Amino acid sequence: MSNATNPKYAIGIDLGGTSTKFGIVDKDGHILKQDRIPTDSEKPIDFFIQQLHEKLQPMIDEVGGKEAFIGIGMGAPNGNLYTGNIEYAANLHWKGIVPVAHLLNEKFGLKAMLTNDANAAAMGEMMYGAAKGMKHFITITLGTGVGSGIVIDGRMVVGNDGFAGELGHTIVRHNGRLHKLTGSRGCLEVYASATGVRQTAIEFMEKHPEKPSLLRNFPQDSLTSEIVYECALKGDVIAKDVFDFTGEILGEALANFVMFSSPQAIILFGGLTKAGSYIMNPTKEAMEKNLYQVFKNKVQLVFSNLKESDAAILGASALVL
Amino acid sequence: MSNATNPKYAIGIDLGGTSTKFGIVDKDGHILKQDRIPTDSEKPIDFFIQQLHEKLQPMIDEVGGKEAFIGIGMGAPNGNLYTGNIEYAANLHWKGIVPVAHLLNEKFGLKAMLTNDANAAAMGEMMYGAAKGMKHFITITLGTGVGSGIVIDGRMVVGNDGFAGELGHTIVRHNGRLHKLTGSRGCLEVYASATGVRQTAIEFMEKHPEKPSLLRNFPQDSLTSEIVYECALKGDVIAKDVFDFTGEILGEALANFVMFSSPQAIILFGGLTKAGSYIMNPTKEAMEKNLYQVFKNKVQLVFSNLKESDAAILGASALVL
Repeated sequence: MSNATNPKYAIGIDLGGTSTKFGIVDKDGHILKQDRIPTDSEKPIDFFIQQLHEKLQPMIDEVGGKEAFIGIGMGAPNGNLYTGNIEYAANLHWKGIVPVAHLLNEKFGLKAMLTNDANAAAMGEMMYGAAKGMKHFITITLGTGVGSGIVIDGRMVVGNDGFAGELGHTIVRHNGRLHKLTGSRGCLEVYASATGVRQTAIEFMEKHPEKPSLLRNFPQDSLTSEIVYECALKGDVIAKDVFDFTGEILGEALANFVMFSSPQAIILFGGLTKAGSYIMNPTKEAMEKNLYQVFKNKVQLVFSNLKESDAAILGASALVL
Repeated sequence: MSNATNPKYAIGIDLGGTSTKFGIVDKDGHILKQDRIPTDSEKPIDFFIQQLHEKLQPMIDEVGGKEAFIGIGMGAPNGNLYTGNIEYAANLHWKGIVPVAHLLNEKFGLKAMLTNDANAAAMGEMMYGAAKGMKHFITITLGTGVGSGIVIDGRMVVGNDGFAGELGHTIVRHNGRLHKLTGSRGCLEVYASATGVRQTAIEFMEKHPEKPSLLRNFPQDSLTSEIVYECALKGDVIAKDVFDFTGEILGEALANFVMFSSPQAIILFGGLTKAGSYIMNPTKEAMEKNLYQVFKNKVQLVFSNLKESDAAILGASALVL
C-alpha cells in the first residue's frame, strides 16, 4: 500500500472549553472530514480521549487507516508545545497538568503534538487565511474567552516556557471587573469576550434603569452577545453603547500589543466578530487613538476570513504536517 | 599595516535626549575610550554630527585611524534599524525623519548602523550583562523616559517596521496622567520614569497637605527621583508611598509584558533603579499579583549589573562588530 510508505494526512483537533472540533486534513490544507464532541471536562480526561477515539477511528479507517497519517496536532487552552501537556487551564475542569499529547499517542498509535488553542488558530491563519504571507501579526479570538496567537518574523511566539501569548489575561482596567476563574481584576477577557459583553449589557441596564432598551425583553440568563448585536442592529442605544464600551477597551489593549511587537496586522476571530462594524469601528478608533505616533495608521485590523473552527483545526494539523 | 586588513574596533554611540555618550569598543566588548557631548537637538543635526566628529576623530586616530574600524553603531530614540533614520522622536527637537546613519557614514567614511536606544542597551545586556546566555528577556530603562528592548528566541524584536518595543508608551491607566510630548493619557512613561516619580511626589504632597514630609523642604523645581529616594531612606512616608505607587503601576505593566512574550527575566536599568528595594519590592509584588497562574514565580526581575551608558555603547557597537 502506498499509504504505508507515504502518509499524507493529519488529524487536527481544536479542544475548546465547551466543545472539541476535529478534522482530517491533507497536505494542501483541505479538511476532508470533520466532526465535534462536547469537551465535558467535568468527566475524567480518559473519558474524553475515549469519546474522541470512538468518533475519529472510523474517519481514520475510511481514508486508509493510521498508516495514512503523519500524526495528530491539537490546540487546547494552556496547551504547551514543549511538554505536550495542558497545564492549569482556567476554563477546563481537568485540574493541574494533563498529559494530553501522551494520551493521544497511546490511544491512536500516532505521533501527537499540542499547542495553545490560540496559537493553533494563528498558524491556520498564517498558512491559509488572512495572514497568508505575513511575518508579523497577532490573532485575537473573541469567544467565550479571549485568546491570542503572536507571530514575529514568521515564527510563533511561545516564549521561554511555551506559554507566551496570553493576551486575554493582560490587565486593561486597574482594579476592574473580577475574573471569576482566575481571581484577577480588569483583564481583557472579562470585557472583550462574549461573556464580558453580556455582563456589560447587564451592568448598563442596571446603571440606567430609566433608559428603555430592547435588551430588557430578555431574561438575563438568556442574554448573549448575539442578542446584543441584534438589538444594536435595531437601533437600541444601550446595545450600541455596550459595543462602544467593549471596543474602547479592546482597542486600547490592541494599541499596547502593537507597541510591543509592531505587527503588520491584527486578525480578530470568534463570536464577537459577528457584530461587524459595531465592534470594529470603536475598536479601531481606540487603537489608533492610543498608538504612539510611529505606529499610527499602519496596522491592518481585520476580521478573519476563515471559519474559527477551521482555522484552529488547520493550524493544529500543521503542527505535524 | 595589519589594521588595514584586519579592522578590530567599533564605535558605539548612545544618543540620549540630554547627552550623547560614545566609546571605542574592541571585539571582546571592552570600552577602550569613551566621552560624551550634549545632544543639543535644538540645533541642527549637522551641528551635532560636527561636534561628535570633533571629539571622536582624535580617539579614532589614536588607535590606528579609520582603517582599524569595522564601523559605527548607534542607539537613539526611535532609531530604525531598517532605515537608519531617527523617525519622529518625541524627546528630540529634530523633527520628522533624520537620516543619521547616512550622515555618520558621510562624515566618518565608515559603515554606520542605527537602532532604537533601548534595543542597543538590551543587546549590550545580552552580550555582556545580566542577560548573558538568555534567549528570552526584556530590558526596561527607567530614566528620564521609559525605554524597552525585547529579545525572543535570542533575537531582538524590531517588528514589521523596525519600531517594536515601545513599552513606555503602553497605556497602564485609562484616561490617566497626560504625556505632554505625545498627548496620550496614562502611559507607563508618565509614571515609571524619573519625571513621573517627581510628578507623583508633587501630587501626593498636594493631595495630603496635612501630612508632614521631608520632600516639602525642596522647591518643586529641584525635586528629583534621587531626592525622593533619599527621603524614603530617612523614613519619609510620602516618599515611600511614591515608590509604592510607582511600583504598583510598573509591576502591573511588567505582568502584561510577561503574558505577551513569557521571558526568563526582566532587567531594569536607569536612574530609578538607584532606589533599590524601595522600587523593586512593590514592583515585584504587583507583577506577581497580576500574572496569570502559569507565569507566577517564574520570571527573574533584576537590576542591570552594567552601567547604563556602558550597556548602550556596547550594544550599539555590537550592531557592526
